[in-house]
Amino acid sequence: MPSTKSVRVFAPATVANVACGFDVLGFAIHGLGDYVTARFVDQGGLGIESITGDGGRLPKETSKNTAGLAALALLKKAGKESGANIQLSIEKNMPLGSGLGSSAASSAAAVVAVNELIGKPFSVQELLPFAVEGEMAASGSAHADNVAAALFGGFILVKTHNPPDVISLPTPSKLHCTIIHPSIEIQTRNSRMILKKDVLLEKAVTQWANLGALVAGLYTEDYELISRSLHDEIIEPVRSILIPGFADMKQAAIDAGALGCSISGSGPSIFALSISKKEAESIGNSMGSVLKKIGLEYHTHVSEINTTGAHVVKA
Amino acid sequence: MPSTKSVRVFAPATVANVACGFDVLGFAIHGLGDYVTARFVDQGGLGIESITGDGGRLPKETSKNTAGLAALALLKKAGKESGANIQLSIEKNMPLGSGLGSSAASSAAAVVAVNELIGKPFSVQELLPFAVEGEMAASGSAHADNVAAALFGGFILVKTHNPPDVISLPTPSKLHCTIIHPSIEIQTRNSRMILKKDVLLEKAVTQWANLGALVAGLYTEDYELISRSLHDEIIEPVRSILIPGFADMKQAAIDAGALGCSISGSGPSIFALSISKKEAESIGNSMGSVLKKIGLEYHTHVSEINTTGAHVVKA
Repeated sequence: MPSTKSVRVFAPATVANVACGFDVLGFAIHGLGDYVTARFVDQGGLGIESITGDGGRLPKETSKNTAGLAALALLKKAGKESGANIQLSIEKNMPLGSGLGSSAASSAAAVVAVNELIGKPFSVQELLPFAVEGEMAASGSAHADNVAAALFGGFILVKTHNPPDVISLPTPSKLHCTIIHPSIEIQTRNSRMILKKDVLLEKAVTQWANLGALVAGLYTEDYELISRSLHDEIIEPVRSILIPGFADMKQAAIDAGALGCSISGSGPSIFALSISKKEAESIGNSMGSVLKKIGLEYHTHVSEINTTGAHVVKA
Repeated sequence: MPSTKSVRVFAPATVANVACGFDVLGFAIHGLGDYVTARFVDQGGLGIESITGDGGRLPKETSKNTAGLAALALLKKAGKESGANIQLSIEKNMPLGSGLGSSAASSAAAVVAVNELIGKPFSVQELLPFAVEGEMAASGSAHADNVAAALFGGFILVKTHNPPDVISLPTPSKLHCTIIHPSIEIQTRNSRMILKKDVLLEKAVTQWANLGALVAGLYTEDYELISRSLHDEIIEPVRSILIPGFADMKQAAIDAGALGCSISGSGPSIFALSISKKEAESIGNSMGSVLKKIGLEYHTHVSEINTTGAHVVKA
């Protein structure tokens, strides 16, 4: 017998790629994210009864919605595909197409909510493949970087995406993140299409040296090493073309003390890491003044690294 | 005033690349390596008075020899280029062109010996750029992976080669290494030439995911993760063509319990990692029987990871 009638879950926004870790690295932040409420109803199987905060743009059909697909995958594995009558309410609490893992947050929140509602047949670790299935609907391919970070919190390295093999990396305690979200929208599919299929071996070597060094920097809490490693010579030069003012914002962030700065996921949001809230705020102001000059609206957000991930909240 | 008249130094053989870490990762082993003795003489500047174990193949001119060039770079930086009258004796104690960092061992031993002889003006860390200069003469490009591992011991990640920025990674205590050296010779220059200049982005992503995971596995002493990460989809498929029986040897190593198996440096030596001396020996036997079948002579060598690196030994 289910122990509750309704479960509400928050899952955080996430920064994927993290400069040198294209498609394999992500971390979660605080203060931005989605809520999914799952509740038992009398009949009708799995459905989505409401979506707010999306401007009416997300599909309500379970089989087309990331949260719906993720919940379906879970129920199928639990052997309750047809037997569970559950309605989901999705509260989008961050902009769509922002590069902050919007669809991943909904997928992660949905699987945690439904799992809790049906009596926790799965551990949090076991929920990941279901959330990845939901994420596939949004990005067109199975990627676990945002979704694993949203689910588990902290820094996540994705060794393989499908089936997911992910590693939780340590989070240096001083790390703060600044996000700036210019008011333009980039679809992950499009942002992926513009990437070249080949890269120079020489640049690939530089990239994996940096990623290895970044992982070492996270384990040793070596902020200087983290800073020296936060470079992306492969993806950023291509994708940044889609982001007005990118080079100037990045320079402004570095000048204001950022350890590093790059595109969050497929953009247009940009993230910068630093070692204090004060610096993180100053970085946000510096990046913002670049966008002010070119007359583009934006939001900034400052957060520590979120090491909690998706979790049940009071209804 | 110099405190000694003669210093003898051992520097170990090294395994570079380590499957997923092409050009950026290396580790040192025990039992194979080179000795360099440096001694003061009355006149003549820096010279090489003897080289043994090379079959007469290495140049004795200081400016063409890896150990000589490394020592020259050191003396130049110390401001003693013309004032120091030093003769080097080089004892090659491992095969040339084996993929075990033969030139790197000589470079590393030379800089430690000369530094010690002239009263230690430099820390071991400061010696790396000099050893890299020597290594350039052998490989045709500045690579610090073998040379840093020979100098410092343990696992070394090279973030940048020139100037070198290297990170000492932890060495899981159970790790053992098996080396098999088939009696053929591959020149690093040639082994580098056959590589393609471009790689598929998809394969590069897999490679940096594996390298990141391997670094995490070393920090957490997670042998299963280390094993899952020891794959090379980019370099090994190309270079292994030059090594008779490679695929069968690799399979034999895995079947005998190896965590992973790949080419050591540019080959033809192959390394396998495992978690006990017994397994490491059994892996050596299994790989050896492959070469026996095809009638190729070989040597095997079993060692723990050498975490000491280059060091002074009694004359």
